[in-house]
Amino acid sequence: MDKPTIGVIGMAVMGKNLALNIESRGYTVAIYNRTASKTETVAKDHADKKLVPSYTIEDFVASLEKPRRIILMVKAGAGTDAVIAQLVPLLDKGDILIDGGNTNFHDTRRRNKDLANSGINFIGMGVSGGELGALQGPSLMPGGQREAYDLVAPVLNQIAAKVDEDGSACVAYIGPDGAGHYVKMVHNGIEYGDMELIAEAYNLLRNFVGLDMDEIAKVFADWSKGELHSYLIDITAEILTRKDDLGSDKPIVDVILDRAGNKGTGKWSSQSAAELGVPQSVITESLYARYISAMKDERVAASKVLPKPVGNVAVGDKAEAIEMIRKALYFSKLMSYAQGFEQMRVASEHYNWDLNYGEIASIWRAGCIIRAQFLQNITNAYEKDPALKNLLLDDYFIDITKNYQEAVRDLVGLAAKAGVPVPGFMAAISYYDSYRSEVLPANMIQAQRDYFGAHTYERTDRDGMYHYTWYTEQ
Amino acid sequence: MDKPTIGVIGMAVMGKNLALNIESRGYTVAIYNRTASKTETVAKDHADKKLVPSYTIEDFVASLEKPRRIILMVKAGAGTDAVIAQLVPLLDKGDILIDGGNTNFHDTRRRNKDLANSGINFIGMGVSGGELGALQGPSLMPGGQREAYDLVAPVLNQIAAKVDEDGSACVAYIGPDGAGHYVKMVHNGIEYGDMELIAEAYNLLRNFVGLDMDEIAKVFADWSKGELHSYLIDITAEILTRKDDLGSDKPIVDVILDRAGNKGTGKWSSQSAAELGVPQSVITESLYARYISAMKDERVAASKVLPKPVGNVAVGDKAEAIEMIRKALYFSKLMSYAQGFEQMRVASEHYNWDLNYGEIASIWRAGCIIRAQFLQNITNAYEKDPALKNLLLDDYFIDITKNYQEAVRDLVGLAAKAGVPVPGFMAAISYYDSYRSEVLPANMIQAQRDYFGAHTYERTDRDGMYHYTWYTEQ
Repeated sequence: MDKPTIGVIGMAVMGKNLALNIESRGYTVAIYNRTASKTETVAKDHADKKLVPSYTIEDFVASLEKPRRIILMVKAGAGTDAVIAQLVPLLDKGDILIDGGNTNFHDTRRRNKDLANSGINFIGMGVSGGELGALQGPSLMPGGQREAYDLVAPVLNQIAAKVDEDGSACVAYIGPDGAGHYVKMVHNGIEYGDMELIAEAYNLLRNFVGLDMDEIAKVFADWSKGELHSYLIDITAEILTRKDDLGSDKPIVDVILDRAGNKGTGKWSSQSAAELGVPQSVITESLYARYISAMKDERVAASKVLPKPVGNVAVGDKAEAIEMIRKALYFSKLMSYAQGFEQMRVASEHYNWDLNYGEIASIWRAGCIIRAQFLQNITNAYEKDPALKNLLLDDYFIDITKNYQEAVRDLVGLAAKAGVPVPGFMAAISYYDSYRSEVLPANMIQAQRDYFGAHTYERTDRDGMYHYTWYTEQ
Repeated sequence: MDKPTIGVIGMAVMGKNLALNIESRGYTVAIYNRTASKTETVAKDHADKKLVPSYTIEDFVASLEKPRRIILMVKAGAGTDAVIAQLVPLLDKGDILIDGGNTNFHDTRRRNKDLANSGINFIGMGVSGGELGALQGPSLMPGGQREAYDLVAPVLNQIAAKVDEDGSACVAYIGPDGAGHYVKMVHNGIEYGDMELIAEAYNLLRNFVGLDMDEIAKVFADWSKGELHSYLIDITAEILTRKDDLGSDKPIVDVILDRAGNKGTGKWSSQSAAELGVPQSVITESLYARYISAMKDERVAASKVLPKPVGNVAVGDKAEAIEMIRKALYFSKLMSYAQGFEQMRVASEHYNWDLNYGEIASIWRAGCIIRAQFLQNITNAYEKDPALKNLLLDDYFIDITKNYQEAVRDLVGLAAKAGVPVPGFMAAISYYDSYRSEVLPANMIQAQRDYFGAHTYERTDRDGMYHYTWYTEQ
């Protein structure tokens, strides 16, 4: 066998699958895991593959072609720092470490800077697509030294997902230091938003329109043939057709407990939006919806004492109600993406990343969890106007908001009357109406702040900061 | 003059006013400022007061009675660390430093721990009430060593605001290390919520009901006579009666630019909620509303291209519309407080603070920006049930939600149709409907997560974590 071109540290499922993906493209791949038995199992299970197992980290490093290309697929956090500390004395200047974990971009910025002092390149790479994506073709978001990226680009291009329409690979150089992990974080925030909006639509179809599970499955399958077409809509339709695998006759969804987990990236996304001054309300409401869902015992108790709305809300024509929900879902999805891309724009300016938004949308078209044809509209918008401040100002977005806004306006009113929570849809229409408001009541807030805290305010008719004499000190 | 009982570092308006407040209770107060001229000015302007100015920090420390009690009123952040570093070599074991700045509780936790190693007590004290509050009686939220608090409690009790109804002082020992600054941070988050909800109500009265400024002022003045009675409602009514002070004939609100500022505490509050898993949506939407307001140029541009809702929404009877808005405002305020107190409960468990929620509500009844009689209901709720999980489960809250929910349900629908943004009201009703939902569509989210990421899920009918075989690997 050739000397391995690249090595993977971490033989849990993501690392193993990524190694197998690389190997399948004709490369020899070094593999290593802290617990040797795991490495051994992978090597044995795939004895026909060009995998070169090492059982010490020294052997692993020594086995690699130079400059070394090492992908870390270990649990993000202290574990990553520990592996880096072990590696650094064994590496040479110009070697390339790639962290493919779900790492907080602040950590990636720090590591990139620290390692650069030793002449070692550090790439923080977002990897989306789950286990199957890692094996068959994920969407990859690498950020770090440009020249180091160029040295691994051929491999990354081969292992990344390919877009059906044009065959392009779902990978691109994202930007310096933590840019790749930042963009992956926003991707995951948008994923939270998509999932919450789908969950709200499902809830409305069931508890407002009154459809049964088969009917709802059919609605999602229909929707996936149109502009909503996406991986998440597809799997939703699929999930709704499945029965319990432990013997009951129920749909599997009905035996799954309504308590949603999260692994931190959605949280980081909201925290960064708050930090940077970006109103990212749809994603944040999606995060909070998961948090409320986790309070299952409280909710069960509350459902017994907190009053429901009075009376029934007439659904009217079912087909019309379904179409209203579809439009509201698409409209809200657009708001969520507008917020996510705005967050990237502000972050790019703040951290000097020079992000290419059209290209980012483009590499999300396949491989990743939010993959969808819809993303082409975003690429088109930025191709038309690379300096676009907000996606809502693009013609495609304007056109959709024009045609769909009445649906979401009607729907949030009906949902409120029916008592079906739609925090994502409501955040979406609130954002739309706030963003298109020439005047917001923030003048009242500024007056209050100046009243109680002498915080001063700007005026509409001249420059400068002003303070009003609201009262005389006693 | 006696040796000063207490000293204040930082002679900007808050520090100066706090020193004068303490002096007015019969104490001799040492004062010091990095720039000596400021100290000199304060001493000269108040030559008749028992203020002892020092022009070096050594003299300042030497002037104080032991154990020394020093209140820092300096700009939060690096400035605080710099002053502490200067002070530490001059202090003795048992001395007490009190940081009265708007400090992030993480910093307070760190400083409390670091200084404890040198035997110095460190109290992080939230101070609310603005400039006038500092002078006449603020609400004080001190956290740190209990035994140190006891040594300064007599002074704090005297300078704090007093509640009209029962004369009690608006100060209490909050808890260890960063508890005081945390509670102040949540106070400020709630303040953001109150202000946003008032701004939304004002906007609706004006742009939906169609009242003029005098009519709106009267509405707020009326509201302040009932259960909404609070400082912020009072000053809103007052603000609405004021004319431009620079010559135009307009109401001052109409010449104030609708771009709201913020000083960080609302942001920290949302970030901490996200960190701790608390769905704090009303406060977060209030933060985001300020962020959107700051994008003035974008909004002006967007208002020209983004379509408005079609058609007009009939307001109907004006008095009824006003009452609907009042009810929605009060309902939403309750949701915001429920979320804020839930955040404190979770933080208290997480950081081991043993917070006394009823007492916290009690010391917010006077002095601070959110002061209101309404807070007595919260104190009552926790007195009835100190282990109350969420304020929404208290009888008073249940009663209000029962009687007011239809108003907010109707109102958000009307506002959506009219295109008037009400992110706070919408977050409030979403939270209410989510919290009282025995079943939320998070089961769909869990199914999706298990589908694409093998994240596993819980079941409704038995314990444990499960994974469904959604597909066979190819």
